[in-house]
Amino acid sequence: MNFNIEALKMHEDNRGKIAIKSKIELKTKDDLSTAYTPGVAEPCRKIHENPDDVYKYTSKGNLVAVVSDGSAVLGLGNIGPKAAIPVMEGKCILFKEFGDVDAFPICLDTQDTEEIIKAVKQLAPVFGGINLEDISAPRCFEIEKRLIEELDIPVFHDDQHGTAVVVLAALINSLKLRKSDITDIECVINGAGAAGIAICKLLQSAGIKNVILCDTKGAISKNRTDLNSAKAAMAEITNVNGESGTLADVIKGKDLFIGVSAADMLSKDMVKSMNNPIIFAMANPTPEILPQDALDAGAFIVGTGRSDFDNQINNVLVFPGLFRAVLDLRLKAFTEEIKIAAAKAIASVVKDEELSKTYILPSSLDRSVVPAIVEAIKAL
Amino acid sequence: MNFNIEALKMHEDNRGKIAIKSKIELKTKDDLSTAYTPGVAEPCRKIHENPDDVYKYTSKGNLVAVVSDGSAVLGLGNIGPKAAIPVMEGKCILFKEFGDVDAFPICLDTQDTEEIIKAVKQLAPVFGGINLEDISAPRCFEIEKRLIEELDIPVFHDDQHGTAVVVLAALINSLKLRKSDITDIECVINGAGAAGIAICKLLQSAGIKNVILCDTKGAISKNRTDLNSAKAAMAEITNVNGESGTLADVIKGKDLFIGVSAADMLSKDMVKSMNNPIIFAMANPTPEILPQDALDAGAFIVGTGRSDFDNQINNVLVFPGLFRAVLDLRLKAFTEEIKIAAAKAIASVVKDEELSKTYILPSSLDRSVVPAIVEAIKAL
Repeated sequence: MNFNIEALKMHEDNRGKIAIKSKIELKTKDDLSTAYTPGVAEPCRKIHENPDDVYKYTSKGNLVAVVSDGSAVLGLGNIGPKAAIPVMEGKCILFKEFGDVDAFPICLDTQDTEEIIKAVKQLAPVFGGINLEDISAPRCFEIEKRLIEELDIPVFHDDQHGTAVVVLAALINSLKLRKSDITDIECVINGAGAAGIAICKLLQSAGIKNVILCDTKGAISKNRTDLNSAKAAMAEITNVNGESGTLADVIKGKDLFIGVSAADMLSKDMVKSMNNPIIFAMANPTPEILPQDALDAGAFIVGTGRSDFDNQINNVLVFPGLFRAVLDLRLKAFTEEIKIAAAKAIASVVKDEELSKTYILPSSLDRSVVPAIVEAIKAL
Repeated sequence: MNFNIEALKMHEDNRGKIAIKSKIELKTKDDLSTAYTPGVAEPCRKIHENPDDVYKYTSKGNLVAVVSDGSAVLGLGNIGPKAAIPVMEGKCILFKEFGDVDAFPICLDTQDTEEIIKAVKQLAPVFGGINLEDISAPRCFEIEKRLIEELDIPVFHDDQHGTAVVVLAALINSLKLRKSDITDIECVINGAGAAGIAICKLLQSAGIKNVILCDTKGAISKNRTDLNSAKAAMAEITNVNGESGTLADVIKGKDLFIGVSAADMLSKDMVKSMNNPIIFAMANPTPEILPQDALDAGAFIVGTGRSDFDNQINNVLVFPGLFRAVLDLRLKAFTEEIKIAAAKAIASVVKDEELSKTYILPSSLDRSVVPAIVEAIKAL
């Protein structure tokens, strides 16, 4: 199947992917008088008296804005807000299909950090949550941080935390097969953008002691003088042994490689230099190393972002359930505890008897993932 | 039926009125790969190469933002963006039900004119049109004017132009019954806010020569020194005989009263002083005069905004068809010609043999209104 041709046809035939649906019948004059004037004035009055009633009488409690400025879309880069719409609509229908979350695309015609923050705050009244998407680093950190501080609804940058949660889920199951404890393994993450930094932080919260982040210039350490503020902050809390050098230098003897970088960044020789390694090569569309090459070089387990290889590591396993839970429970924040619980829940969907080196994560289509996440977060 | 109680129940039982619907099946891995990664990259690339392809591959062409700041909601006044949501969701489901237009509520947490303009421009990429709603005058004029100038999609303030179109439709049919020509009648409009001014302008475009606008201080004329800029501009182009005084003073001998003001502003004595008058008393929820009182005082025809009296003059007859037409034809502006064509089309839905003093407009539920408007605008 040629997905490019099929995708163009699907998008053109349907004129996009989302529509609005009324939850109310409008067949009689009484229907009109109840859903619209004069009846509608009464829920308005109630909300005016008690703003929290907005969750009772409107769709807010199940509505999520999928917000992008089109600055870092898939592997396509800064293609702007209009060209980003197909991705955001896609995200919205995944939210609906898997989480029964009503998500709407907001593609902003500005790439100014302060303007994005202001615009999202201004349009927040109708939404119960904000999913930030495909906004380039380091702006995405400031935007997420400020919106979390300044809004009274949960805010989540999926490229960071959705990716981190699914990586942790994949790791949990890989370690069961490798019979290793998470506190004993050493990790290199190649790619120090939004996803790399978020993965790093969540793995540390989950117990990994030594993580080395690499960018195109090699290992990030306190000795580097060329780091932006986000990377400099990471230098303070990673790379406990102060290793320096290229990816090839620092990867030697490590147990886990996580790639959120670019095609062909990981060589077979590098894999050979590792310790019975777990390889998550998630660059899209071409991974840092092809799975067969990694296995030939001695990898214990290989996962990628692609659906046509085993072990697809895809955050569609994460965001529908995570938002479903947070909306249902009216939680204000996606804490580390919530993210770790979600990762464990996703991992738990793969039963011990099914778990194998080629099956470490549930299928993207597995309907038991969302309820598992919701139950786990409710139990916290 | 107690619409207040029913409305609370309906809104609470359904948790609001709108949901998102996927137009795409997501049942297989191939579905995911076509609607989302990797396939979705291809429509993104096409739009990046040719921005107009956004109409081909996304939902933009059928998506309308219903934008309010909650500053002038129904008769409730400035209740803010959250309390306005039930009205905006109601508008959205009317758009969907009658026009098959996908409309989404945007309730902005700002009432600053420049900030509203900026916010709407920033969120415009995903939308094919903007419906401004319940924004107080005179800010609404500047906001609409600037957005029309600065956006490449059609912008429409329904409180102004939707109301004007349905009033003109009601007038066209009333004049058939009264056997009068629109160029011969004289009119007083009570209420010089957004709706009053828009009605005035459209009636003039349709041929009425003498319209007098009144505010709470009486007739607006060039002699008044207390007018805001919007009213001062209207003084230049209305009240051809320079009449001054109260509503009671200037209404004498006139043929048409249009009320967009408040309860009980029109007395039976005023009606008696008019010339076989047509009375459109549209204040909500209590009209300027009750229909029976107006008829007792000699009114030829009476219409109100209410569904429980004959001749409901309601802009739900207008906006679904008008947007359906403008979206289908990719028109950039709602011109006077388009608005007059829509009014004539709405009037034409009432067949000559059905037309009577108690049936001058089609029912709000009449499914033939939208196609009639679309056909009329296509024929221009």
